[in-house]
Amino acid sequence: MNQPRLATKNDMPRVLELIKELAVFEKEPDAVEVTVSDLQNDGFGDKPKFTCFVLEIDGVVEGIALVYSRYSTWKGEAIHLEDLIVSHKHRGKGLGSLLLDEVVKYAYQKKVRRVCWEVLDWNTSAIDFYESKGANVMRDWDVVQLDEKGINNYVKNITS
Amino acid sequence: MNQPRLATKNDMPRVLELIKELAVFEKEPDAVEVTVSDLQNDGFGDKPKFTCFVLEIDGVVEGIALVYSRYSTWKGEAIHLEDLIVSHKHRGKGLGSLLLDEVVKYAYQKKVRRVCWEVLDWNTSAIDFYESKGANVMRDWDVVQLDEKGINNYVKNITS
Repeated sequence: MNQPRLATKNDMPRVLELIKELAVFEKEPDAVEVTVSDLQNDGFGDKPKFTCFVLEIDGVVEGIALVYSRYSTWKGEAIHLEDLIVSHKHRGKGLGSLLLDEVVKYAYQKKVRRVCWEVLDWNTSAIDFYESKGANVMRDWDVVQLDEKGINNYVKNITS
Repeated sequence: MNQPRLATKNDMPRVLELIKELAVFEKEPDAVEVTVSDLQNDGFGDKPKFTCFVLEIDGVVEGIALVYSRYSTWKGEAIHLEDLIVSHKHRGKGLGSLLLDEVVKYAYQKKVRRVCWEVLDWNTSAIDFYESKGANVMRDWDVVQLDEKGINNYVKNITS
């Protein structure tokens, strides 16, 4: 099997397809507002907002891992794994492991003290996979989000 | 009451005290490895890794909000609230609200479509506070971490 490589701008149309495939699996098919040109501008400009690894099979990208830096006030710079996606038809062949290997090597080379990500608590196959790799699934920590509408309402309330 | 302001390098000793106070509350008193000089270098160099707001009472910083950018593959750039801390003796006076207001205004000005953070599921007073502000506490999303030891073990296993 190929090894993962860094994504290029030209990979972004396929990367977005995989992002949308995952959104369907996560039961939020309409949530993806990012476009191909957003990904191309945000990931490949002067100050890239993310780093993306891709894995090809027969010349087609079938898996991606998209990461960026965060900052822990306990551990300093950390690497966040935003998406680890393998196309539906290539699940169970070890692509996810190869991509996660690449992310952890990248974090190790950057000398960070933490790699973090998020998982749906009903996605037991993902949780089993992550735990088998030594990760700690912190079931007592929940994710909180204020969405675009929430931001707008919030600002309207405090300025009116 | 004062309004929040941007932190300076000189605030970092007090900011670290508040970070450590929160770590005690979260039952992880020994987890803070970051030092004052880490915070000063990481927050105030050429490429700041975070932005910190502070709120003073009687000339002493009694509350902080520390944020940085993340990247959602659904919504694009997002603001992550890493820490919202009010000193124990000044809880319940509205400092947390003023700091969260500042964070949401900052996100609004940056035109991002999401503000995100994490909460301990047993911290019901924090959860009530966040929900009263319109945030969505996603109880089905858990936080996953691979710590420094986990990173080292992982790399050792895949390279041996």
